[in-house]
Amino acid sequence: MKIFKPIKENEAKGRVKQIFKDIKKTRNITKIPNFWRSLAHNPDTLQRTWQNLKQIMKKGALDAVTKELIYVAVSITNSCEYCTRSHTFAAKKKGATDQMIKEMIDVVGLANQNNKLVESYHVEVDKIYK
Amino acid sequence: MKIFKPIKENEAKGRVKQIFKDIKKTRNITKIPNFWRSLAHNPDTLQRTWQNLKQIMKKGALDAVTKELIYVAVSITNSCEYCTRSHTFAAKKKGATDQMIKEMIDVVGLANQNNKLVESYHVEVDKIYK
Amino acid sequence: MKIFKPIKENEAKGRVKQIFKDIKKTRNITKIPNFWRSLAHNPDTLQRTWQNLKQIMKKGALDAVTKELIYVAVSITNSCEYCTRSHTFAAKKKGATDQMIKEMIDVVGLANQNNKLVESYHVEVDKIYK
Amino acid sequence: MKIFKPIKENEAKGRVKQIFKDIKKTRNITKIPNFWRSLAHNPDTLQRTWQNLKQIMKKGALDAVTKELIYVAVSITNSCEYCTRSHTFAAKKKGATDQMIKEMIDVVGLANQNNKLVESYHVEVDKIYK
Amino acid sequence: MKIFKPIKENEAKGRVKQIFKDIKKTRNITKIPNFWRSLAHNPDTLQRTWQNLKQIMKKGALDAVTKELIYVAVSITNSCEYCTRSHTFAAKKKGATDQMIKEMIDVVGLANQNNKLVESYHVEVDKIYK
Amino acid sequence: MKIFKPIKENEAKGRVKQIFKDIKKTRNITKIPNFWRSLAHNPDTLQRTWQNLKQIMKKGALDAVTKELIYVAVSITNSCEYCTRSHTFAAKKKGATDQMIKEMIDVVGLANQNNKLVESYHVEVDKIYK
Repeated sequence: MKIFKPIKENEAKGRVKQIFKDIKKTRNITKIPNFWRSLAHNPDTLQRTWQNLKQIMKKGALDAVTKELIYVAVSITNSCEYCTRSHTFAAKKKGATDQMIKEMIDVVGLANQNNKLVESYHVEVDKIYK
Repeated sequence: MKIFKPIKENEAKGRVKQIFKDIKKTRNITKIPNFWRSLAHNPDTLQRTWQNLKQIMKKGALDAVTKELIYVAVSITNSCEYCTRSHTFAAKKKGATDQMIKEMIDVVGLANQNNKLVESYHVEVDKIYK
Repeated sequence: MKIFKPIKENEAKGRVKQIFKDIKKTRNITKIPNFWRSLAHNPDTLQRTWQNLKQIMKKGALDAVTKELIYVAVSITNSCEYCTRSHTFAAKKKGATDQMIKEMIDVVGLANQNNKLVESYHVEVDKIYK
Repeated sequence: MKIFKPIKENEAKGRVKQIFKDIKKTRNITKIPNFWRSLAHNPDTLQRTWQNLKQIMKKGALDAVTKELIYVAVSITNSCEYCTRSHTFAAKKKGATDQMIKEMIDVVGLANQNNKLVESYHVEVDKIYK
Repeated sequence: MKIFKPIKENEAKGRVKQIFKDIKKTRNITKIPNFWRSLAHNPDTLQRTWQNLKQIMKKGALDAVTKELIYVAVSITNSCEYCTRSHTFAAKKKGATDQMIKEMIDVVGLANQNNKLVESYHVEVDKIYK
Repeated sequence: MKIFKPIKENEAKGRVKQIFKDIKKTRNITKIPNFWRSLAHNPDTLQRTWQNLKQIMKKGALDAVTKELIYVAVSITNSCEYCTRSHTFAAKKKGATDQMIKEMIDVVGLANQNNKLVESYHVEVDKIYK
């Protein structure tokens, strides 16, 4: 179906063209990834999603690499391959090493296991954690 | 049901008693949390889970705070309240500030939204990410 | 493995053949989709699933398009590509426009984000909602 | 922990106070729900989330009730009780009947069942759906 | 909200009353659990769900205990407390021992961990498994 | 990315080589599956995961086939294709019949549907189940 085919960069007009330009500059890339070309079917969605992402993923109390690793951890838990691959790529570009990624994966595996052990035994929240 | 009631500390014997001792010492706490008291119904599970956790969560290429934040991010995505509360507590004890936790939460919200936008448009993985 | 290969239409016999006929007539299609050909390995499952679907998806207080959009929203949340594609197809056949689908996607993204913000802050249910 | 306690309305200042005022006016309510009072710990998050929600949930090609029902369908699938209750409330306020809600629930149950049947049999996407 | 309050047994009429009677007889219980009393808001849903359950959960190539354990394993993975508790109860009534339940929980934990390791490394399906 | 390419068997050294040998012997196979070759990027993870799996999946109060079926049920619920395929293969190798697998699938579909009906109606846990 048409809405499932990403829009071509040279077909972008007006607001979409502007946002594509900002994405390439901010990310220091020469081609717009499929994600943004897909969202371009809906310029409001493209603009809102890009603005949200720029605001949230910039360095703050957490550095940019840590934020990307957290993003990837969520994406693995949600089984989203595109999201895992694109944000692992971003994490590495921002300085994450292979060892950091592998340790993040171990934590994700452990958390998923223990989350289910907690559910299994219906563990009540200890007072100290409230 | 009986297996859903955490074992009392003073009822712990043998291997379970030893592990409880190690948990209190390693974590610098005086009471065993409900999670470990529940796993104690199955000493093999208790020992394996505690050994896994000690191995994975210790400082490596990622520091211990970052690992706790990743653990919490997964737990939020899985809607596990106990896990979120107990590991937010651990993260703060190891040095995470409120601002760091709030930024982690923002990344988790964003990743969950964008993961679903990716699924919606069936976005194919760009070559550069493979 | 054999159970993962859809049954061919011309191999359908007895009850399965009858249900295939009903599917083609009800849906106004000429080929049985892979989903139903897979379920046909288990005639009871095929019959139960088809009867459930006919009963639930027919026009009621909600029109058929709205029901398909809700179905797709759930399938996106579950990351089921086949389900998303086949029911987006059904929604369009029943009258959904591209704009309706894009707005549904935006709601799905928003709900997934806010669901996680709610989990993050352990928000208690307000009295007015109970 | 402090970040898990909603901020009191009379403690809201500056930007947060303004947004609280806008929420009450737009929603025609007299008390700020716990969700918004929790997000207020992070004024950027509060503002972004409220703006996103206003933009996405307003009447478009889909009417406001349909959007709320889709929101609830996602929230059920994610097991988020607060989200289910608060948006079922919103749906009813905007005109949804009990019968509409019950039919939405049936679709959600069916979609969740069939999503898993699809995963079980590894059903390949039919050409017609691409 | 009214649809969230289970219907009382002595208010059940007609078809609902008949199904309640069948549930009590089949399950050998004297009180209708909250689940069925909630579904009774929608007699079609009640009837369909009860018929589906009777057909699927009866002894076949898998015995009734194994089916209940599989049901619980899915419910833990979905974080559904009611489902976990009610079907653990059913499993025990049909003969499951505490040791069987604890071993099931271990498998659930392991599978959830390994599922995420598979997603993390984007492991491709080996030919032998297709 | 390199960490997403499985390590070749003839490149395995030291501890990894030993574990690969144990996997082939224990499983009675001649080629190491992609899963273990991927984990080998991180020898600690490989060793821990293989030890956990051997300990948990061996015959106990539950037989080995039942454990594999429970593993598959979780993997379907998590939409992990690799996991579903590899452990369905394992289940069949250990004696599961096609009929057993199909019945397991029916239970998984039913549980996923009913889990969501429970969430929809916010069903409270009956006293008898606690």
